[in-house]
Order: sequence, then C-alpha cells, then structure tokens
Amino acid sequence: MNIYAERLTRVRSSMDDLGLDTMILTPGAGMRYLTGFDEPAHERLLAVVVSQTHDPIFLTPSLNAAQVRANAAEIDDVRMWDDADGWEKLLHDVCVDEALDLGIVALDDNMPARFALTIQQLLPTTILKLAGPALAAQRACKDTLELASMQHAADATDALIAPALSACVVGASELDVALAIGRGLAEAGAEPSFEAIIGAGPNGASPHHHTGKTRLRRGDVVVLDFGARVEGYCGDITRVAAVGEASDQAREVYDVVYRAHKAAFDAVQPGATAHDVDAAARQVIHDAGYGEFFIHRTGHGIGLDEHEEPFIVAGSRTRLAPGHCFSIEPGIYLPGQFGVRLENIVTVTEDGTARAFNQPIPPELPVL
Amino acid sequence: MNIYAERLTRVRSSMDDLGLDTMILTPGAGMRYLTGFDEPAHERLLAVVVSQTHDPIFLTPSLNAAQVRANAAEIDDVRMWDDADGWEKLLHDVCVDEALDLGIVALDDNMPARFALTIQQLLPTTILKLAGPALAAQRACKDTLELASMQHAADATDALIAPALSACVVGASELDVALAIGRGLAEAGAEPSFEAIIGAGPNGASPHHHTGKTRLRRGDVVVLDFGARVEGYCGDITRVAAVGEASDQAREVYDVVYRAHKAAFDAVQPGATAHDVDAAARQVIHDAGYGEFFIHRTGHGIGLDEHEEPFIVAGSRTRLAPGHCFSIEPGIYLPGQFGVRLENIVTVTEDGTARAFNQPIPPELPVL
Repeated sequence: MNIYAERLTRVRSSMDDLGLDTMILTPGAGMRYLTGFDEPAHERLLAVVVSQTHDPIFLTPSLNAAQVRANAAEIDDVRMWDDADGWEKLLHDVCVDEALDLGIVALDDNMPARFALTIQQLLPTTILKLAGPALAAQRACKDTLELASMQHAADATDALIAPALSACVVGASELDVALAIGRGLAEAGAEPSFEAIIGAGPNGASPHHHTGKTRLRRGDVVVLDFGARVEGYCGDITRVAAVGEASDQAREVYDVVYRAHKAAFDAVQPGATAHDVDAAARQVIHDAGYGEFFIHRTGHGIGLDEHEEPFIVAGSRTRLAPGHCFSIEPGIYLPGQFGVRLENIVTVTEDGTARAFNQPIPPELPVL
Repeated sequence: MNIYAERLTRVRSSMDDLGLDTMILTPGAGMRYLTGFDEPAHERLLAVVVSQTHDPIFLTPSLNAAQVRANAAEIDDVRMWDDADGWEKLLHDVCVDEALDLGIVALDDNMPARFALTIQQLLPTTILKLAGPALAAQRACKDTLELASMQHAADATDALIAPALSACVVGASELDVALAIGRGLAEAGAEPSFEAIIGAGPNGASPHHHTGKTRLRRGDVVVLDFGARVEGYCGDITRVAAVGEASDQAREVYDVVYRAHKAAFDAVQPGATAHDVDAAARQVIHDAGYGEFFIHRTGHGIGLDEHEEPFIVAGSRTRLAPGHCFSIEPGIYLPGQFGVRLENIVTVTEDGTARAFNQPIPPELPVL
C-alpha cells in the first residue's frame, strides 16, 4: 500500500469517528496530504471529493487537468469542467449520482465562501460540516515520508543561518538581512515558509514585527525568524545575535531563554501533554523573574501548514505521540529594549525522547 | 465627506440594488477598500459588519484591537473577543441585537468555510449570499486616491525593469533574474504583487511558467512578468528581450505583439466594450497568421486584487468607464521555441482616451 493509500485509510477512519460521509477539499494542505497535489488555489473550483464509499474523484477546470492527472496519489477519476458550462453542474451531478448528498458532507476549512455557499445551494438538504478535524487528527502525526521532508526543510533552513548572520553588520537594514535570506533561498531553489521576521534592537521586542528599514547599530540584539519550505513542508527557526558587543542584560536574558528552551525540550515525551511542555519553559522564565515578558505560547505544530496541531499551549490536554512535530520557541520581550526568542522544530520519537530537526542552538549569545 | 465615507455610500447603493441588507467582510480587498484595514487574514475571525441601517462594526480578536482601532476609515465601533469566549457569541449578539439576522446577509467571497458554515449555524434562519458583486461594481472604477496609488505601483514596477534586464546575461538562471527583481523591491521597501514569472527560451511559451533553474543562453527570448504592490495596489508589467542576439522570427513576433498591444490601447474609450478591446488585439495577431498562438484573454482588471473586474475578454459586454484600470497583455506562444507578451496597465480617462500608468513599451525587440 502506498503512502497516500495509507493516509486515505486513516483519514476515512477519522471521518467515521466524526460521522462524516464525504469531504470536499480545495487546494491547500488537506488536499496535498491526501493526493500530493500542490498547486495553489485560484478563482476556479478545483476539488477532490473523498468519501467512505467511492474512490476519490477530482473535479478540475480543464486548464488544470494535466496537472491534476499527474497527482502523486494516482487518483485516476478526474472530471473536468470548462468556463462555458461552469463547475456547479459537475459538482451537483457527481454528488447526486454517487448519492453523496444524502449523508454529511464536510468542506475544506479554508474553502472560500464563494464555493461553500454555492455548494449549500446545490445540495439544499445536505448537512455541511467542516473537514478540518478529521484531517488534523491524522496530519498531526507525521509518517516516514513526512519526517524525511521535515528534515529536508530543517536542513534548508539551517543553511540560511550563516548568510543571515553574515548580513547582520552595523548599518545594514532589517530588509538587507531578509534579502540575504531570500538570496540563500533562491540559490537553493526553495521557497520561504513565511515572510522572514528580522527585528533589530527594540523591534525585536515585538514578536510579529514587520521587517523594515531600521538599520542595525552596534550593541543591537537582533531576532531572526525565518524558514524554508521544502517538498511542501515548512521549516521555521529563530536565532538571536548581538551586533559588535553585548550588554550583560542581553547575555542574561539569552541564557534564561536558552534554559527555558532546553527545559521544554527535555519535557517532551510520548504521553506528556502539550501543557506540560509549555509549563516547563514557562517555569524557567518565571523563576528568573521574566514571567510577564513571555507573552505567547511555547510552540505550534508544523508540517504542510506553518501552524497546525498540536499547539504547545497552557491548558492543552493534547497528549504528545510519536510523529508529532512542533516548534519550541520560548521568548522574553522587553519593550523598548530588545527581545530574545530561540526556536527549533522537534519531533517525538518512537523511543520516547525528543529529537530536534535543526542544529543545536548556541548556548551563549553570539556576538557578531 | 472623506473617501471611505464616499465608498461606503456607493457600496450601500450597490447592496440596495442587489437586495443585500448586511455584509460581513473578512481581511482582504473588500475590507481594505471600505476601511483601509490591510493586515492579512489569520486563523481568528476578524470582520467588519456593514449594513444599510447601522454604522460599520468591527469584530476583532483582542490581539488585533489596536491595529483595528487605527483603521483609516475611522470606524470607531470596535468590539473584541478573546480566546476564552470565542468569536461566535459576539457575532451572534451583534447580529441579533441589531436585527441584522432578519434580512439577507452577504459574506465576503473569500471568507473561509470555517467561518461561513459557523455563521450559517449561528443565524439558522438568515439567507446568506455573496458580497462580491456589490463590491466589484464599485471597486472596478477607481477613485482619485486609488488612481494615485495605481500610479505609485506602476512607478515602482517600472523601476524594476532596468535591474531585471541587467540580470539577463548568458549563464544567469531565471531565478537569478527573479532575485534581481526581489532585491529591487526590497531596496524600495515594496512587496511583490505576485511571484515573478521569468521564462527563458522555450519556457516563455508557457504563460504561467514557474520560474526555475533554467539558464539563459545566447539568442534566448526572455519573458519577464512582475509587479510591485504599493499602498495595497498592484503593479503588473511584462517585458521581453533577447539575450545577445535575436532571430528574425523573434523580431517579427515581437512586432506583431507590439502592434496588437497598440491596437487594443487605441480601442479603449468610455462606452467601448471589453470585448472590443480584446478583439482589436486579436485581430492584429490573427491577421499576422499567429491567431492560434494567442491562447488567453487580452487583459484583466487590477487594483487591490491582482485580477479583478473588468476582464478584457471575448464576449464581455462590460462597457468601459472612466476609472476602470486593467492590463493590456496580448501574447504569442510558440511551443518549444519562445513566447512574447507585452503588458502595461492602463486606465480609462474622463476625456475619453486610454492612459498607461507604465512607461512606453519599446517598439522593437530589445537585444541585451
């Protein structure tokens, strides 16, 4: 059984648990997970219909038929529509002919309303739900092929650290540093997972700072948060360095965050809750007197989506299991001064420990 | 009356024409048009509720409240929800308290199903429709502020032509050329409107080629299609050049496309149909014997979205009016050989002519 057939079997099992008879998925992570098809969404409806009773069926604009036929899952039931006829009749006929309209139909969580509302009109007596939960349950635990892609994404991401740090010189702007990352990505033929966040000095105290024209000054602490996407899977790391010289406070805060990261890493094991991992990092930062400056969750799951299950957040009862992949990224943000966040992507292994995909984080604040 | 108040008045008029009582818009072009709010969409519901009877109301996660309160339209009714309570109760209460659930509620065309289906459950007796048509009718004709932004986007885009062409040297890859464009964008502090399409030699014969590692060779015809986004508005141009030397056929095809572009430009006037403009370009290419190789429409409207109304396509009865902004981009694609597409963004002026935002297209194939 190939990997896509295995995924289909597992997702159908989740659908069964949740009482879903059929899913209609549009381009995005869910479709890619089940079919390998990875073109972005456009204005025209492109969907895969996954049911308990029938083999999956692709519906595609005729323009995209060749791409769809090449899907990695080798789904060979590909039905086309063209602009003259529209997609509505095709979708209606597929659902009614296969009696899919009689059960509960789940739509892709990210399907645009222009399709979702029209589907409700086409199938007025059908109960519509969301497909996300049935997919998330399976997607959170990565299979062998996915773990390999996660490693490739981490390797490509790690390869950007050196050029990014090299660009952190006095007088360079945050955008210059982002550009060095962009150049490294282009040379590797990789895409960014997200727009790089480069925060110089006080800008680093804002976790979602928009990289801008601020220039680096001697003594600045710089936060660099970026990632390469490879084979559809997202890399994501954060490193911090000081330009020219580092204050004692910067060194101390870095040390606290480093120890918080390590504590969270050590707390990872199958059966531990996401809450436990968050709490381990939070405790270190609290004990050092910086608790109020750790203003976000400790991490997020990652895979085909940059943010997905499991979220490493206080209160979460999600139990970690082998194949879970997520970030550990505690931070301390001192408004008007600087921020420190240290992030690697890790996975839970079969043998009961955590494994980082990324290179080790330097134990002391690097001074460039 | 400020520009946002004017837009609101006009959109309410369109809503009235279409029988819509209320619109719920999520982040994107529609929200930006009516409120100036331009943050991207995230997992949490952020929406503006626009009705015939009440001032607009923003619903926002508490995390984004400060950004929302700074909205350019100065909408001051901002209601927050937090993760503990969720957004569903707030949306329900707003709709029921204001009696908005009794009429027809239109959802943003791009609202993800995870919100749209939940809204249908929250308001089970409300008829949901799509907001797109009421917005498109107004957004197609740009106002003074928008025309200025369109010019800024075109200027920033034009500024990328020289560095892009300079990168087109024998041995450089398509990605190298894209990187030169990215560098120019970063230096200008602008974003790309879309991922640049660089098609070398035979790759240029595929209109939606994915820029890759193909290296430029002497004699290659290269298609360069890119744009800068400024103040939210999209620039978009296509230029073509030959590397080192040009064949007679390349020069001839360029000349045909140049004349087709000019014919379409000359056909633009208030009252002409989009079909007329498309036909003018198509006729020139047909007469030159290349009709079968012009495989797409002549252009698309452009503004806050890269592709929007009016579409310059055969059969369209849309009548051009002052303020319409769209691309004119005829092309000839010779499979296995090369492609030529020449694109500028133009607008229809009050005095009855077309005006290009971009610099003139070179009348003969540039040889680099």
